[in-house]
Amino acid sequence: MLHDPALLGLDWGTSSLRAWLMDAGGTIMHEHYARHGILNLPDGGFTQVLSDIHAQWRLDAPMPMLACGMVGSINGWREVPYLSCPATLSRLAGALGLQPTVHGLLHIVPGLLKDGPLPDVMRGEETQIIGMMETGNGGHRTVILPGTHSKWAQVEGRTITEFHTFMTGELFAVLMQHSILGRLSATAPPDASQRDEAFVMGVRTALSGIPLAGRLFSARTVVLRNRLERAYAADYLSGLLIGEEIQAGMTAMDIASQAAPVLVGEQALCQRYQLAFTALGHHAPPVAGNTAPAGLFRLAQAAHLLDLPPSHVHDQKGAVA
Amino acid sequence: MLHDPALLGLDWGTSSLRAWLMDAGGTIMHEHYARHGILNLPDGGFTQVLSDIHAQWRLDAPMPMLACGMVGSINGWREVPYLSCPATLSRLAGALGLQPTVHGLLHIVPGLLKDGPLPDVMRGEETQIIGMMETGNGGHRTVILPGTHSKWAQVEGRTITEFHTFMTGELFAVLMQHSILGRLSATAPPDASQRDEAFVMGVRTALSGIPLAGRLFSARTVVLRNRLERAYAADYLSGLLIGEEIQAGMTAMDIASQAAPVLVGEQALCQRYQLAFTALGHHAPPVAGNTAPAGLFRLAQAAHLLDLPPSHVHDQKGAVA
Repeated sequence: MLHDPALLGLDWGTSSLRAWLMDAGGTIMHEHYARHGILNLPDGGFTQVLSDIHAQWRLDAPMPMLACGMVGSINGWREVPYLSCPATLSRLAGALGLQPTVHGLLHIVPGLLKDGPLPDVMRGEETQIIGMMETGNGGHRTVILPGTHSKWAQVEGRTITEFHTFMTGELFAVLMQHSILGRLSATAPPDASQRDEAFVMGVRTALSGIPLAGRLFSARTVVLRNRLERAYAADYLSGLLIGEEIQAGMTAMDIASQAAPVLVGEQALCQRYQLAFTALGHHAPPVAGNTAPAGLFRLAQAAHLLDLPPSHVHDQKGAVA
Repeated sequence: MLHDPALLGLDWGTSSLRAWLMDAGGTIMHEHYARHGILNLPDGGFTQVLSDIHAQWRLDAPMPMLACGMVGSINGWREVPYLSCPATLSRLAGALGLQPTVHGLLHIVPGLLKDGPLPDVMRGEETQIIGMMETGNGGHRTVILPGTHSKWAQVEGRTITEFHTFMTGELFAVLMQHSILGRLSATAPPDASQRDEAFVMGVRTALSGIPLAGRLFSARTVVLRNRLERAYAADYLSGLLIGEEIQAGMTAMDIASQAAPVLVGEQALCQRYQLAFTALGHHAPPVAGNTAPAGLFRLAQAAHLLDLPPSHVHDQKGAVA
């Protein structure tokens, strides 16, 4: 039996866009990916991208639309103010921003703000975290989202209670591209097990008790001292930085008192994090794939977007046209 | 009374060259600075630079010459193998490399290597450290040389017992020039006391107990949250990194058991380190200027370069010509 589309969900980030067409049960019917992030829009901008998706999937009738990510930032389509953390699923669902479009109202998920001496923000990851939440109310969980700006979040039932950003991915990129450490690296090395070995060697330096700035230089000296082949210096550096993040995350999140963490994100990167966890003497957390569509669907349900009669959607469209 | 020149000392680094003409008492008679580092030599290379210095100071007769820094590296004029640490002044003086030149023998100070799981190297700083050494044999001291690759070294009498590199300066440069953190910064801010405030604010984050990778992102969020004017983000980031280095250095060097540290290097940077020390609840270490010429002179004495009869120097010259 073919289901009717019930929700158009979008994860609209800085450099790319993912869209999912879902039925009323949250099952994904179609997925779309393009490098049309908010800083990389084609002619016609946001409107054109949205219209192209409607045309591609032949969405003649307006339907509920919900987007998360940088589309709600000051550089996005409509700025949606950060919601303060801790934040419940229902508070997030009640604070969606509204952007009128020729296809009806686009709802936008707000980002989260943690205030304090070291303020922190996220925009997009809150939706992935919601996609990971247990349907019941019990249980603490640490959700780790590795990436350019890795996030470690604490979840309690349906509440995001706390989170912390680590600039791991960006640090790796700038050090490889622009520092003396990157100059050591040759072409991509072929041996996967040697890559893992170099990575674990880097991870384990985090156990030395010496802070990051005092270990970075070793990415150069282990090569100079022939402890490591030049071709694997990037893996060592990656391990050094991810090891630091995990040690720091375990501290910042007081994870010992929490349930086992879970990794959310791209498969290959999450596997590296698993390897780092075991190298540091922890259990490897399970890996969830991309939980953004599940999060969008859950938020859409909580905001009663799926209950709206088509006429309401049409009215909104009329109001814009 | 005018003294005769007795030693030509050179600190020949990657990007610049400093030379000093000293008399038999170690007093500096002339100083020369040029951007003729080993990776930035003019036509004629090393030989031409050395000849220009001889011509500039009208050094007709050959004289003892001693150089430190990257001139002794694999990319330098002659590679001088690292000496293992701990290293005494006399071991260093006994391991000088020799490069024949048309002006006689150029002696080159070896760098130091600390072996172990996190190997470390220095080349040039060992001479600055020797320039700081007490003339007596007693006393521990921590010598801090802030810079692109900051060094923290332990000195016991006339022995360099231990050292550690922090990539603080390079991290600051690549993050400001190439990361999201640099995008926040505007033109150089005019208010010196506000710059110091922002710097101290960054330094104090090191007291949070959260490792560096988990604090870097705050250089962005404190601006987004209006805790800090955009123009002072660079000072905050500088404080964040220098605070990390000092916390780490105090740990790695087990400084509590040592005599007070001393800062060696450029005045403005050393003053920032002093400010960071006080912001973290420590006494501000005293600042020594450039101790490289004193180190070169002491090494030249220990190697008996100043005792050589002119004829010996001439012989060496003849051997090359």
